[in-house]
Amino acid sequence: MTAAALLTDLAGLPFAKGHGTGNDFVLVADPEARHELTAAHVAALCDRHQGIGGDGLIRAVRTRDVPEAAGLAAAHPEAEWFMDYRNSDGSIAEMCGNGVRVFVHFLLDQGLTELNDGEVLAVGTRAGLKRVTRSDNGYAVDMGTWRFTFPGKAAERALDSLVETGGIEAGRPGLSVDMGNPHTVVALSDAEELDRARLHDVPVVEPLPPHGTNVEYVLPAEPLVQEGVGRIRIRIHERGVGETQSCGTGACAAVVATRHWAGGVPAERWDVEVPGGVVAVKFLTGTEGEERVELSGPAAVVAHGVIG
Amino acid sequence: MTAAALLTDLAGLPFAKGHGTGNDFVLVADPEARHELTAAHVAALCDRHQGIGGDGLIRAVRTRDVPEAAGLAAAHPEAEWFMDYRNSDGSIAEMCGNGVRVFVHFLLDQGLTELNDGEVLAVGTRAGLKRVTRSDNGYAVDMGTWRFTFPGKAAERALDSLVETGGIEAGRPGLSVDMGNPHTVVALSDAEELDRARLHDVPVVEPLPPHGTNVEYVLPAEPLVQEGVGRIRIRIHERGVGETQSCGTGACAAVVATRHWAGGVPAERWDVEVPGGVVAVKFLTGTEGEERVELSGPAAVVAHGVIG
Repeated sequence: MTAAALLTDLAGLPFAKGHGTGNDFVLVADPEARHELTAAHVAALCDRHQGIGGDGLIRAVRTRDVPEAAGLAAAHPEAEWFMDYRNSDGSIAEMCGNGVRVFVHFLLDQGLTELNDGEVLAVGTRAGLKRVTRSDNGYAVDMGTWRFTFPGKAAERALDSLVETGGIEAGRPGLSVDMGNPHTVVALSDAEELDRARLHDVPVVEPLPPHGTNVEYVLPAEPLVQEGVGRIRIRIHERGVGETQSCGTGACAAVVATRHWAGGVPAERWDVEVPGGVVAVKFLTGTEGEERVELSGPAAVVAHGVIG
Repeated sequence: MTAAALLTDLAGLPFAKGHGTGNDFVLVADPEARHELTAAHVAALCDRHQGIGGDGLIRAVRTRDVPEAAGLAAAHPEAEWFMDYRNSDGSIAEMCGNGVRVFVHFLLDQGLTELNDGEVLAVGTRAGLKRVTRSDNGYAVDMGTWRFTFPGKAAERALDSLVETGGIEAGRPGLSVDMGNPHTVVALSDAEELDRARLHDVPVVEPLPPHGTNVEYVLPAEPLVQEGVGRIRIRIHERGVGETQSCGTGACAAVVATRHWAGGVPAERWDVEVPGGVVAVKFLTGTEGEERVELSGPAAVVAHGVIG
């Protein structure tokens, strides 16, 4: 089917458009589980010129209505809603840090759930249960744990990769961090260098993590931490996409690497300026003593509409 | 104001999203002339990540309500509707070949006018009166006359410029054609070369037309004209934008240049494949014997919505 025929097929479908720091989504509420969108339908909706446009599509559906989430629904009956997230090409995606905030904001916008200050909302995703709370800057999401991709090398010299990107001096040292998805973080020393990077070009990373990597270029504030708040500015190259306005796991990875380079300097919170806005990262201790990463930031629904 | 504040300011504004061969627009019907959108409002709406997204915004307003169109309203009272077209950064734009089709389709969609087969609809634009009819492939627009930018050189050797673009062999010959806006057309000989061109890079054109130039890379069909229909495929670099899915005046300029190179070979119609679809170009004779260019192609409204 052509893009036009695919959209005609969806005529009458209500949707919203929303974003979290510029990471934007077509949002579809499907409380009756009636809209099993094919990959082609998702791609047509996410087409920025011939459809609505978005980095991806998020469908809100009940966890119990998602066959692949049967285990999660049984183990966590409190997770009423499932984030059915797809990439803009229609392929299945596990999770998206900014997407979870927008998903929860959309559930509230649609009157599908409630979330008072201090309460925790459990939501189902393909990466398992995610816990979301309200925060000063919007919504906070427990992103789970992190690890160094090459732990021996990281411990030894805090740098394990060499990165080359258009506009940036060759052979910059990087540090690879796994947040459930792969990241390689590169520290730059001046804003002019950060601004100059051509991030639509695919950076060359050596050694490359097994499944490829996203790359974050970081400019630390001077001083790095002030009054308990660490500050960094980043730009992002997303694997298979190019430069993006924001990346939730990328912001977390950038803070993990920056803190490591700074000798583990403590901070109550890290503010991360991305091209599309500001998100915040905190480190929390889990029930088994593990260190967990919390990502918070704004979420917006900018319009409501109907296809056709 | 921030993008978020600008959109909050527009809460409740009805809009549509539409496109003509992938040249896409935020559409606003303003029959009461109540929505004088500022440049900042337009830019917020056209932002692809934090707004709705579009190559530009088209506001449908009555010609008599547009102060700058007072002369046009007096001379052509039949032109009830005016296409208030803005670029995605909010700046004023004169005209857009694909935009006129989408504008007329939107007027019909909103029930603001009628257009039967064989009738001509006169619409006001900043480039003057435009005449639109229905056609087999959607809508046809009289785009006016054309001229060679460097007429002496063109007549002499059919080539007047040297063009360099990323991915294409240096020093390709080009031909500059003025369609009211400037174009430089470059013929390529194989599809692989056309596919390889990196059209987000700004092509270097020498000599450059006085106000800069858009560049079209053309691949002629073999044979060029079959059963009265000429066929070419083009890719486009739009001045100040980069590669675009379609450009109405660019398609016209590419046909003018191709026909010139082919020694004025006659064709009843020229089909131009652009990345976003197919448009058609015909040459007509005006009332004063002048040659005029007619551009036809599809127009679609893909969604209707409300801001906020």
